[in-house]
Amino acid sequence: MNILHSTPQKDGFYMPAEFSAHDGCIMIFPHRRDSWQNGAYAARKAFAQVIGYISQSEKVTVCARYEDYDAARFLLPPYVRVVEMESDDAWARDVAPTFVTNGQTIRGIDWGFNAWGGLEDGLYFPWDKDNKMARKLCDLLEVDSYDRRDFILEGGSIHSDGEGTLLTTEACLLSRGRNPHLTKETIEQRLKENLGVQKVLWLPCGIYQDETNEHVDNICAFTAPGEVVLAWTDDTADPQYALSKRCWDYLMRVTDAQGRALKVHRLPLPKPVTITAEECDGLDDMDGEPTRRPGERLAASYVNFYIANAHVVVPQFGDEKDAAALAILQKLFPTRKVVGVYARDILIGGGNIHCITQQIPHAGSLQGGKSL
Amino acid sequence: MNILHSTPQKDGFYMPAEFSAHDGCIMIFPHRRDSWQNGAYAARKAFAQVIGYISQSEKVTVCARYEDYDAARFLLPPYVRVVEMESDDAWARDVAPTFVTNGQTIRGIDWGFNAWGGLEDGLYFPWDKDNKMARKLCDLLEVDSYDRRDFILEGGSIHSDGEGTLLTTEACLLSRGRNPHLTKETIEQRLKENLGVQKVLWLPCGIYQDETNEHVDNICAFTAPGEVVLAWTDDTADPQYALSKRCWDYLMRVTDAQGRALKVHRLPLPKPVTITAEECDGLDDMDGEPTRRPGERLAASYVNFYIANAHVVVPQFGDEKDAAALAILQKLFPTRKVVGVYARDILIGGGNIHCITQQIPHAGSLQGGKSL
Repeated sequence: MNILHSTPQKDGFYMPAEFSAHDGCIMIFPHRRDSWQNGAYAARKAFAQVIGYISQSEKVTVCARYEDYDAARFLLPPYVRVVEMESDDAWARDVAPTFVTNGQTIRGIDWGFNAWGGLEDGLYFPWDKDNKMARKLCDLLEVDSYDRRDFILEGGSIHSDGEGTLLTTEACLLSRGRNPHLTKETIEQRLKENLGVQKVLWLPCGIYQDETNEHVDNICAFTAPGEVVLAWTDDTADPQYALSKRCWDYLMRVTDAQGRALKVHRLPLPKPVTITAEECDGLDDMDGEPTRRPGERLAASYVNFYIANAHVVVPQFGDEKDAAALAILQKLFPTRKVVGVYARDILIGGGNIHCITQQIPHAGSLQGGKSL
Repeated sequence: MNILHSTPQKDGFYMPAEFSAHDGCIMIFPHRRDSWQNGAYAARKAFAQVIGYISQSEKVTVCARYEDYDAARFLLPPYVRVVEMESDDAWARDVAPTFVTNGQTIRGIDWGFNAWGGLEDGLYFPWDKDNKMARKLCDLLEVDSYDRRDFILEGGSIHSDGEGTLLTTEACLLSRGRNPHLTKETIEQRLKENLGVQKVLWLPCGIYQDETNEHVDNICAFTAPGEVVLAWTDDTADPQYALSKRCWDYLMRVTDAQGRALKVHRLPLPKPVTITAEECDGLDDMDGEPTRRPGERLAASYVNFYIANAHVVVPQFGDEKDAAALAILQKLFPTRKVVGVYARDILIGGGNIHCITQQIPHAGSLQGGKSL
């Protein structure tokens, strides 16, 4: 693994869309007792279900801490690879590299990671183990790694259409806990030169109470070039309504890098999901304080799905909208099987299926989701 | 990775000779402060020299603890892969899997490891991290793993000629710290069914003061089918003389699995190497006791070399016999470049170049050292 200090754009690399072909997927075995109730027991089973689907069409590599290796190995099927790697938590989307390709080979970007806001409004301290994972994953996979540790970014805060357009949120990327010394223009420039995109679409916000400062991957995702799904509620009394409406209005008036107006599909939100007192009782305190309070609303959204080669794996909440969300996505992904995983135990940790995955694109992926 | 409970022999697998083609080599980044002087600083540099040669013709994967990853990454060239893995010490030969092949694919054997003798006469406690490495390495390499944890064996105690013959020592394999509940016949049977060999040659002993209970890889090694080198001294006053002579006499009267008498090449030993007071001062105590005493003789031997695809990497001791050992080996390995690495800093840890390496055979290796 070479550690590179040039930029992907200069080197002819760009970030393919998630709906392009994958060579594999990186995940992390959950362990953190103040993130996941009851020693992460239920979360591990939900992760295993997600892995079960993805591994049908992609090589899944699961990072487990030394002390969790045996538990991971015996919970997961033999065709899933378990590797030893320390982590602070289990959000592969945000701590694994963002991979870029030039159509022949892939490389990884090693962004700075500060637990979603560092000492300003981050979610835990320290985060050094997470921050070291991207480089080690590049080393493991034998791909070169761009050193971008001076720029704070999480994979969950960006979506690429593979045709020159990046989707992100102002709420996250302009937050005081990320890169407050940089202007919006400079941040946009960094995104362009690292992700090989020509246009950045700045959604104003994300999902209500999303503790990542409103990552884009919980509210809006590309389903094809020129097409997105947007998390939506018709309940004007819900604080989420105004957030989704602002995004809708923005998306209605912009065009992508190819000059196309976007086709926006509304994906319904489940009814507000709140954590119970019993679930809170299963969580360790952090620095003497509870990490969740009974009745706290969690940032539940069906948009937080993962697009595998053969499946789209979608969170389910035991809500009456579960089936409708699957049906909408199945129409948008006609070549893949859309499947649901009951994900309340992932949501309790603060994210969902997209957040716990990071695709390794097929090096030969072509723009627009076609693959060699 | 499947964990297998059958035997390699039944499944049509056998252990190829080290002089067959390799796909790669596994090593471990040293860290143990009671094994390696001055925080393993000098040892790391010697390891890096060994890696430098091997990596010219084989993919080297170096296991580093979480806290050593950065040090390993910056010391080693970019084409060497560094992966995170906990270990108790740095002896890949003894803790990495022994690989077997059926000519099409490889599998690993996960022997039990108890630090060369467990509570009987082992060298450290605990050894659980070492004992877990073989399975994790198979997982990492995506090869199936035979679970042989109920049988204590280290890779340094066996040499295969790839044509049905195994070389080992009675001193080690019949020691009370290995498998004292098993008879010699049962142990031989286990070797045959796991390594796919038809004949086991039992050298009586190894190198004087070799704290592995006299591993074969420090005294005798195959250089070709039907040919071995034997560590030798002409000094009849040296306690090593009787040990080498007993091995010589044994080798003179046996035949290998193919019915051949063995051609035995004497490889001179360096003058006795003893550890200095200054070197001892650089070692941490273990459980309040020094691990070495000034003047203690170390088990130095040129036989502890590694046969890479393009090189034979041979320990050097600053001894007048250094050059002669290289010259003898160069004649025996005409298709490879024989190179020396000054290895005193590896020897202080208790072994040498062969002990810190484990080859990953090329799956298509044919018997007798030919490769596809």
